[in-house]
Amino acid sequence: MNQTETLLQRRERLLGPSVPTFYRDPVELVHGEGVWLWDADGRRYLDCYNNVAHVGHCHPRVVAAIAKQAGTLNTHSRYLHRGILDYVERLGARFGHGLSQMVPVCTGSEANDVAMRMAQAATGRTGFIATDATYHGNTALVSQLSTRRPPVGGYAGNIRLVPAPGGDVDAEAFASSVARAAQELEEAGHGLAGLMLCPIFANEGFPDVPPGYADAAVAAVRKAGGLVLCDEVQAGFGRVGSHFWGHELLGIAPDAVSMGKPMGNGHPVAGVMTRPDIMAAFRGAFGYFNTFGGNPVSAAAANATLSVIEDEDLVTKARDVGAYARERLAAIGHPLIAGLRGRGLFFGAELRHADGSAASDATADLVEAMRRRGVLLNRIGPEGNILKIRPPMVFDHGHADLMIATLTEALDEVAP
Amino acid sequence: MNQTETLLQRRERLLGPSVPTFYRDPVELVHGEGVWLWDADGRRYLDCYNNVAHVGHCHPRVVAAIAKQAGTLNTHSRYLHRGILDYVERLGARFGHGLSQMVPVCTGSEANDVAMRMAQAATGRTGFIATDATYHGNTALVSQLSTRRPPVGGYAGNIRLVPAPGGDVDAEAFASSVARAAQELEEAGHGLAGLMLCPIFANEGFPDVPPGYADAAVAAVRKAGGLVLCDEVQAGFGRVGSHFWGHELLGIAPDAVSMGKPMGNGHPVAGVMTRPDIMAAFRGAFGYFNTFGGNPVSAAAANATLSVIEDEDLVTKARDVGAYARERLAAIGHPLIAGLRGRGLFFGAELRHADGSAASDATADLVEAMRRRGVLLNRIGPEGNILKIRPPMVFDHGHADLMIATLTEALDEVAP
Repeated sequence: MNQTETLLQRRERLLGPSVPTFYRDPVELVHGEGVWLWDADGRRYLDCYNNVAHVGHCHPRVVAAIAKQAGTLNTHSRYLHRGILDYVERLGARFGHGLSQMVPVCTGSEANDVAMRMAQAATGRTGFIATDATYHGNTALVSQLSTRRPPVGGYAGNIRLVPAPGGDVDAEAFASSVARAAQELEEAGHGLAGLMLCPIFANEGFPDVPPGYADAAVAAVRKAGGLVLCDEVQAGFGRVGSHFWGHELLGIAPDAVSMGKPMGNGHPVAGVMTRPDIMAAFRGAFGYFNTFGGNPVSAAAANATLSVIEDEDLVTKARDVGAYARERLAAIGHPLIAGLRGRGLFFGAELRHADGSAASDATADLVEAMRRRGVLLNRIGPEGNILKIRPPMVFDHGHADLMIATLTEALDEVAP
Repeated sequence: MNQTETLLQRRERLLGPSVPTFYRDPVELVHGEGVWLWDADGRRYLDCYNNVAHVGHCHPRVVAAIAKQAGTLNTHSRYLHRGILDYVERLGARFGHGLSQMVPVCTGSEANDVAMRMAQAATGRTGFIATDATYHGNTALVSQLSTRRPPVGGYAGNIRLVPAPGGDVDAEAFASSVARAAQELEEAGHGLAGLMLCPIFANEGFPDVPPGYADAAVAAVRKAGGLVLCDEVQAGFGRVGSHFWGHELLGIAPDAVSMGKPMGNGHPVAGVMTRPDIMAAFRGAFGYFNTFGGNPVSAAAANATLSVIEDEDLVTKARDVGAYARERLAAIGHPLIAGLRGRGLFFGAELRHADGSAASDATADLVEAMRRRGVLLNRIGPEGNILKIRPPMVFDHGHADLMIATLTEALDEVAP
């Protein structure tokens, strides 16, 4: 390492250019505990953003489970091991709609890549529909569902992106777009394999869609013979507070559910849960095996995370603390705050100027002002004007108070 | 759990049908240590197969590193953290050919998916060449390189599979096929983005190809403007004994190298190392981010694994013990053993009947006979007649003696 090289320069030298960071002056983190993170200078931050550390940074039960299993056995699932079976059994009890079998993988991207092939295997068709403001992962296939940058060689013909829910896109408009896209895929010879959606439309800026919103769209998918794939990477494991899964909140019956980030509290664990008929079609079509997927340590991390969610009653807590925090957010009454969004511990505020235009720059400044004050959060939405608050699930009333007090100050700084 | 359900039935109920297992009577493993594995009945097995537990099952230094970092901080790389940078710096020193920057991911499949898109980004073309007896992973894109089962909707037009090295396919024939495939891709309008190869052709049955074998094929790829992508998931990290990387043994200069399985001794860690110019093209073309990729715990596992390889001099050990084991394997002199293959601690024997036909069934029986005698290994190759021996790198002369003694007995049982 060059003596005069900064940490950021070193990062660019070793990881390459344009590797995303958070904040204009990125934070170097060295320690985490519960909802708290510490930087290299010993400064403490209230973490209002990280959903991967779902049950709190470095939760002692998850750490102990990982350490114990890593010291006992870690090998792949071509040998038999009860860890992954115990986990799927427990998790399966959390699902309805006949979803009872899982393909264990390592990342949400792998999960969605598998879910899409499940839909292809079950339907014999290849086309997919997603929204035009989404992100479901980064494999070559799954990244076709993202509009961020066109793939080399152009978009594949079997993908249709429909206008995202929210704004003028009401349930009827959404259903019409989905039906039209299915029709186009049929006419183009691809046919509809499935609709992939995040049931809280997280990357779309979590618009305030009511339960039942997607019913007509789902009906259109079924009519066209496609499957409904729910990406619960962001919504799942009790994040929304009122339910364990986002699709329960939305009120739809998915054919396959992808899970990722929060599943192992940071350990690379992910999976796809589906019905036996779809699993059989997938297993018949693909000789799928994932070396690290469902290994004993990953299963131990996932089992411990689920135990903590249950034993610390974190879903109820997400509901109550989330409701409290949104109430207090509404009470701030700053003119930039044009509306609240979200459910449970995935919520935020939409920032608009008096003329109704999106306050994108002010939102960006606010995120930085919060970071300077020791509170980590971020922003999202097509216009980047939606404050995104998504803390570890052990976030309590006191943490919410601190966040709101800091936000009040920061808003006054950014837009006095 | 149903009281009368067997473990295999339970596995099928929860993971679905046709999930691959090893052995006719699959082993339920509960503990591992070094080259040893124990089953649920307390029986000990000599592990001659598992390359994921590269420095030995449950190596205390790797376990301690994982436990310590999991209890300190585990978050994603949008925050700054020195762990992944230290690792890439150390690993980069192991590479020549200007390879110095890494994309950290979680699985070998993700690594190859990224490597293929690097080639597309750097060349602006989309076509790929691989061998017709290979396997490079299981994302939708990467599985197109496998002939195992056709994807739903058929193979993509941008893939050409050429006859695998070995048998009649000498260096010249291999190069001709590659040149012809590149020409076809050009004529079909895809152009050649890259050739993907495992430098020891592991899944092709690790034929005995000499250094320089791939030179003409590589020249054909370069002439067509494509990149050379090396999949070191099986060959890398000193496995071949004589060199740290398989591509050094083969004597080629890759443009990107994918790594996986052994990298974190079982922790889901993988990556792609490439040159800054290719990384810049990739980063310019794709807004790639991997939540779990390069996280502090994964980096700690990878750093500890690399330290053990270095401090226990495991590459030299792989060379010496591998040479010794092959010598003893040759000395068995059983008529079924038609030839030896491999290098370092990735080796095996080809089994053929007196009439020259592949002894596929006998090889299958031998694998089972070894398992019954407490030694785990497997078979590979297009005809399944090549014994595959690939133990953790802490395999020593005594372990080799035990394996050879057991193999001698098992051969006598299978083909007296």
